[in-house]
Amino acid sequence: MSAYFTKHQETLEKALDACTKRYAWTAYPESPSSKIHGHEPPATGKKNFQDKLNHPFPFTTPMPGVSGETGAELSPYTRKPLGITYPKVDTEELFSAATSAMAEWKKTATETRVGICMEILDRCAEQLFENAHATMHTSGQSFIMAFAGSGANALDRGLEALVYAYKAMKDIPESASWERRFGSDGTAALEKEFRLMPVGVSVAVCCATFPLWNGYPALMASLATGNPVILKPHPSAILPVALVVEAARSVLKEAGFDANLVTMVADTREQPATLPLLQHPDTAIIDFTGSPTFGQWIEDNCRRAQVYTETAGCNSVVIESTNNIRGMTKAIAHSLCQASAQMCTSVQNIHIPEQGILVNGEQVSFDDVAEMLVSAVNEHLEEPKMAAFLCGTLVNDEIYSTLDRIEGQGKQRGKILRKSSPYNHPEFPDARTATPLMIEVTPGEKDIYRSELFGPVSFLIKGKNADTCLQEATTDAKECGAITSHVYSTSDDFLEKAQDAYNDVGASVACNLMGMPINFAAAYSDFHVTGLNPAGNACLTDLAFVTRRFRVVQRKKPALKEQ
Amino acid sequence: MSAYFTKHQETLEKALDACTKRYAWTAYPESPSSKIHGHEPPATGKKNFQDKLNHPFPFTTPMPGVSGETGAELSPYTRKPLGITYPKVDTEELFSAATSAMAEWKKTATETRVGICMEILDRCAEQLFENAHATMHTSGQSFIMAFAGSGANALDRGLEALVYAYKAMKDIPESASWERRFGSDGTAALEKEFRLMPVGVSVAVCCATFPLWNGYPALMASLATGNPVILKPHPSAILPVALVVEAARSVLKEAGFDANLVTMVADTREQPATLPLLQHPDTAIIDFTGSPTFGQWIEDNCRRAQVYTETAGCNSVVIESTNNIRGMTKAIAHSLCQASAQMCTSVQNIHIPEQGILVNGEQVSFDDVAEMLVSAVNEHLEEPKMAAFLCGTLVNDEIYSTLDRIEGQGKQRGKILRKSSPYNHPEFPDARTATPLMIEVTPGEKDIYRSELFGPVSFLIKGKNADTCLQEATTDAKECGAITSHVYSTSDDFLEKAQDAYNDVGASVACNLMGMPINFAAAYSDFHVTGLNPAGNACLTDLAFVTRRFRVVQRKKPALKEQ
Repeated sequence: MSAYFTKHQETLEKALDACTKRYAWTAYPESPSSKIHGHEPPATGKKNFQDKLNHPFPFTTPMPGVSGETGAELSPYTRKPLGITYPKVDTEELFSAATSAMAEWKKTATETRVGICMEILDRCAEQLFENAHATMHTSGQSFIMAFAGSGANALDRGLEALVYAYKAMKDIPESASWERRFGSDGTAALEKEFRLMPVGVSVAVCCATFPLWNGYPALMASLATGNPVILKPHPSAILPVALVVEAARSVLKEAGFDANLVTMVADTREQPATLPLLQHPDTAIIDFTGSPTFGQWIEDNCRRAQVYTETAGCNSVVIESTNNIRGMTKAIAHSLCQASAQMCTSVQNIHIPEQGILVNGEQVSFDDVAEMLVSAVNEHLEEPKMAAFLCGTLVNDEIYSTLDRIEGQGKQRGKILRKSSPYNHPEFPDARTATPLMIEVTPGEKDIYRSELFGPVSFLIKGKNADTCLQEATTDAKECGAITSHVYSTSDDFLEKAQDAYNDVGASVACNLMGMPINFAAAYSDFHVTGLNPAGNACLTDLAFVTRRFRVVQRKKPALKEQ
Repeated sequence: MSAYFTKHQETLEKALDACTKRYAWTAYPESPSSKIHGHEPPATGKKNFQDKLNHPFPFTTPMPGVSGETGAELSPYTRKPLGITYPKVDTEELFSAATSAMAEWKKTATETRVGICMEILDRCAEQLFENAHATMHTSGQSFIMAFAGSGANALDRGLEALVYAYKAMKDIPESASWERRFGSDGTAALEKEFRLMPVGVSVAVCCATFPLWNGYPALMASLATGNPVILKPHPSAILPVALVVEAARSVLKEAGFDANLVTMVADTREQPATLPLLQHPDTAIIDFTGSPTFGQWIEDNCRRAQVYTETAGCNSVVIESTNNIRGMTKAIAHSLCQASAQMCTSVQNIHIPEQGILVNGEQVSFDDVAEMLVSAVNEHLEEPKMAAFLCGTLVNDEIYSTLDRIEGQGKQRGKILRKSSPYNHPEFPDARTATPLMIEVTPGEKDIYRSELFGPVSFLIKGKNADTCLQEATTDAKECGAITSHVYSTSDDFLEKAQDAYNDVGASVACNLMGMPINFAAAYSDFHVTGLNPAGNACLTDLAFVTRRFRVVQRKKPALKEQ
């Protein structure tokens, strides 16, 4: 049964080493290029996706407690329903099936469980093409982003979580011999056996825009440590999660375990099914990625369970100076465009001193920096194909309302530097698209920008000077949360000050990033989310993400005396 | 500054190895014998204790926000006030001092912090004699138990927690180099720096009977990971904690750090000060040892903070058969007597089949087993010196009321097998003492025994057969909690069944323990408290006990290119 462990051991060990040293490594290539994959997998993936449209999702093993059908996904590209239905399941029967599946799983050796988890990741890697189409037509990402960010990169994070789970479990020996004298009672010699026990049913709530970003890590962290996992996709992005659930169930079944160790609850926006899962007395673990409001509500109200949240904040950039203004503005503009700024790492608030900044020793005015940022955005979007690749689509219609509302406020209280408008998608004329809205404001208008405005909205905030810019940005990170923060400066002193200021409020910081997508968070290297500010209470992924998902029970008994 | 680390490195590494392999090891000898310590330390320890009586506690560095005096400890041996007063501190000033002390501490290298923590443990080891007298005359333990259980053994647990904190922190590298290609953007090379950040003020609530059992581990786990620690002793056992706080503050000050990293809030029963600490918005960590009721309240209500509880349950014994009935009854009786059954590991509920048990192949009736248990207790108490050594005193007068109440109920609903009465302490004629009350009941009376009855009360529960005994004991462990559980059987099948049954409800189990104090929990070897049943939500000590006490923040920046 640990054949899977042997099969994947080399990869696991490489991942372990990467986590320990945090260099660049990946188990799953993020490029969908046929140079890597050949021509057949991309074609098969697309066909598999298309075959699923307008049918009930073909789970090979029936989900427990099925009482009907649900699901109402719409493609943000075609604006048409996907027409896929998913089983509607009875909560009580679901929990009962999950709990009963746990009985054998918890007795299974660590290596066997970890091997099966590795195999699940492997199967998911095989379906990355299909899942990229699924992600594209639900969360609205561009195909290439769906293949990489929500695909290979997220899978890497899953493996990273598995590595930590494995490491934490292996920290506890299976047995021990113990011997000491107790005064006149003589020597006591005991044999001890330590068993790892799961804590109970684990519920993973996935988000609409990156359905598997926390999905893989939560699944791996909980399943490897012995807990059954119920995945709860967002009603608008069920298919990507269903594909993973099917892969996991197949592997479990093939390995002779109960497929109900991994289940899924689908729902619609009109008939949501999340709360009964979160509030169920048997729910022991909740992983959540989504809005800060709901995340906070879970942290405050679902206290019976362990809660791991990754939400969002108002990610900032502080610009003090640069010697490469083109590189810098291009890098920041990339963040404003990428995935229509619907990423947890997207930049929203750009703090620039009112007197402008030094560029190669020359003063460049605020207005000029602002103009260069706008130009850089426009440049990224010049070619419709690039715009489509970079921006993808909007996950829902509400983002249009946000754009309208914020543009209105921006006009009154600041200055619209760049209007948002749809761009023409070269392939999907009905695609729900929008280019970045960019607004100039002063810190006096902070009530507009001090929370996450989901979608392509950004603010150029005219601060008094670089120090006040830094101070405002870090205060916002502390009070409103931040997942990424950026600083651009040629001064080592300022960079050091910025590092201290961000780190002290529990935020990570990136300095002078350019020549790469600055939204990028690297599995095995970047500690994603600090857990120290309102943008989430947990890191994906570290030891703290896994150590409480299991407990140790022991048995001791007298050692057999040698004859 | 890491001179302390170098000084103690060998001990730390030995402890690390012991934790990994879980064999018997100790850093601090538990015997107070002058053969080990010489004649001077015991005498000095006693004198130091006596010198403290009837004076304000001599903190060498003043506690922050002092607004008066408090403290009203009584010796359970003399029933006289200790006459020691402690600073009464203003909560806001205390938190402000703790938070401000954290600023430098969190920037301090892991090795430096761990070295200082090792030195604190070392200083505490030097004061074990004084602290044993302090513990004796507050918590009521016998001197030898105070020196061992609440002294050396607890210190070992502190070192164990420190080992895990060190291990968890060292799991994260200080820096990393990261390099990869991003398509046409070319190669990005980053230098990353990872900083460990504390989560905030840590409050450790210590209990009356074993003031330092969680005190040392909580102090070590939080302080080593960068958090300031406020110790909150029980109003009846302040002095043992004050001595540790003074030792910690001295070491910190000598090492050039702010002594307010470790502070103490004393109070009286009449004017309790715990709640404002637990509910303070800056409290990020709560360690609690004490009653299940208060522990549960904290778990339910102090949700802003991380909460680690160790409380109590109804520890059970299931007797199926034995080949050494004298050894078994002596071992169980020892648990009923030791520290007047005021230990978290004391046995309360003894399940015996109504038809009796097999002893060396011969049936011994329930009544005979019960009588042998009573005799074994009497034997332990025959000599007043042994009774004093074994039972110590009662921590408070309420235990007399419990004994009266339960004896009354026992008469009506069962059978009193052994009455409780004070024993004459050979050294302290006014000592508050009581011998074990033992009551025979049937499972029909489970409402009497299904919660912790603090003090020397035990039940011999006449079950239908061994299987129902096991089933009842494990159900109680699941629903009412258990820290230790025992099974006596000569049948491998029954032992295996018992292990599964206890482990499955989240309880550890000891089989056929005799020839040693069965209450003993070994640091570096026994995982104390599972966290899976109502007797506590955390284990002292494992990775889960420490991994969330700090977080990682990072900084990344382009690597300097080679010229």
